[in-house]
Amino acid sequence: MGANGTVESQLVESTLRTWQQGVDRATKLFGGLDETGLQREVAPGKNRLIYLYGHLAAVSDAMFAQLRLGERLHPEFDALFLKAPDKTVELPSGAVVKAAWEEVHGRLKVEMAKLSPAEWVERHAVVSEEDFAKEPHRNRFTMLLGRTAHLGFHLGQAVLAR
Amino acid sequence: MGANGTVESQLVESTLRTWQQGVDRATKLFGGLDETGLQREVAPGKNRLIYLYGHLAAVSDAMFAQLRLGERLHPEFDALFLKAPDKTVELPSGAVVKAAWEEVHGRLKVEMAKLSPAEWVERHAVVSEEDFAKEPHRNRFTMLLGRTAHLGFHLGQAVLAR
Repeated sequence: MGANGTVESQLVESTLRTWQQGVDRATKLFGGLDETGLQREVAPGKNRLIYLYGHLAAVSDAMFAQLRLGERLHPEFDALFLKAPDKTVELPSGAVVKAAWEEVHGRLKVEMAKLSPAEWVERHAVVSEEDFAKEPHRNRFTMLLGRTAHLGFHLGQAVLAR
Repeated sequence: MGANGTVESQLVESTLRTWQQGVDRATKLFGGLDETGLQREVAPGKNRLIYLYGHLAAVSDAMFAQLRLGERLHPEFDALFLKAPDKTVELPSGAVVKAAWEEVHGRLKVEMAKLSPAEWVERHAVVSEEDFAKEPHRNRFTMLLGRTAHLGFHLGQAVLAR
């Protein structure tokens, strides 16, 4: 144990910090655009920013159930931002997505901070207890790392539309 | 301690796994392109794939020194892929970048696997001992997480050029 907590608590703290840095960067990037700015495509013929904004909000919202942190807040986003590709259904306004974004990430931050390191390596909800016994890496922590990578992946695209 | 190692070793293992997934994805994406394919831009007027390929190799190569894992292998990449923006200097061929990519990531994998969880939360080389005492999150682990995010960021851009 070091001066600043156990090794395991430091590892979790670093990971939550990196997740939050991605969230904060996205909050600033998308939140600083008006409705017209959010209609821009990241490259010709590719996703619009409004779609990526809602897509990332929907993926984060799904984490409540996947990490077993409670009920998700915006299941209605799935049909718009996960199941449908961009430009196939009418999307809500940027203001609506922004409100959901703030709500989801504010509550995720609170709920994730409550988990102990031992709870982070427990299984996530997308794997059965039987499969988890064989594949113990399918835990909450690996899911958070995957979601952090996913967020960075789309942030890299979003900055191209600046 | 669980059936599969300590909590801290599981957290480190998950993180190395996520890093390696990003590396493998990039290896496949860039490594599967010929010299012509690597000349494509991720969006009109933006970076070419050959530049991102070398940029990511250079950033990974710098990790040897930053994580205190030994001497870096390709310091000559810095001038081409870190200090210079794309299209300002002549770049090496895709074959040259690919050889460096394989070498750097192969050795990084071996060296990173040797670090214990306690060593992961030791300071990285870019922070002084004095500053680290005040900011203990500036450790090797946080640097690995940051590099994983950086890799994902550019992967998101690279897939747009497919």
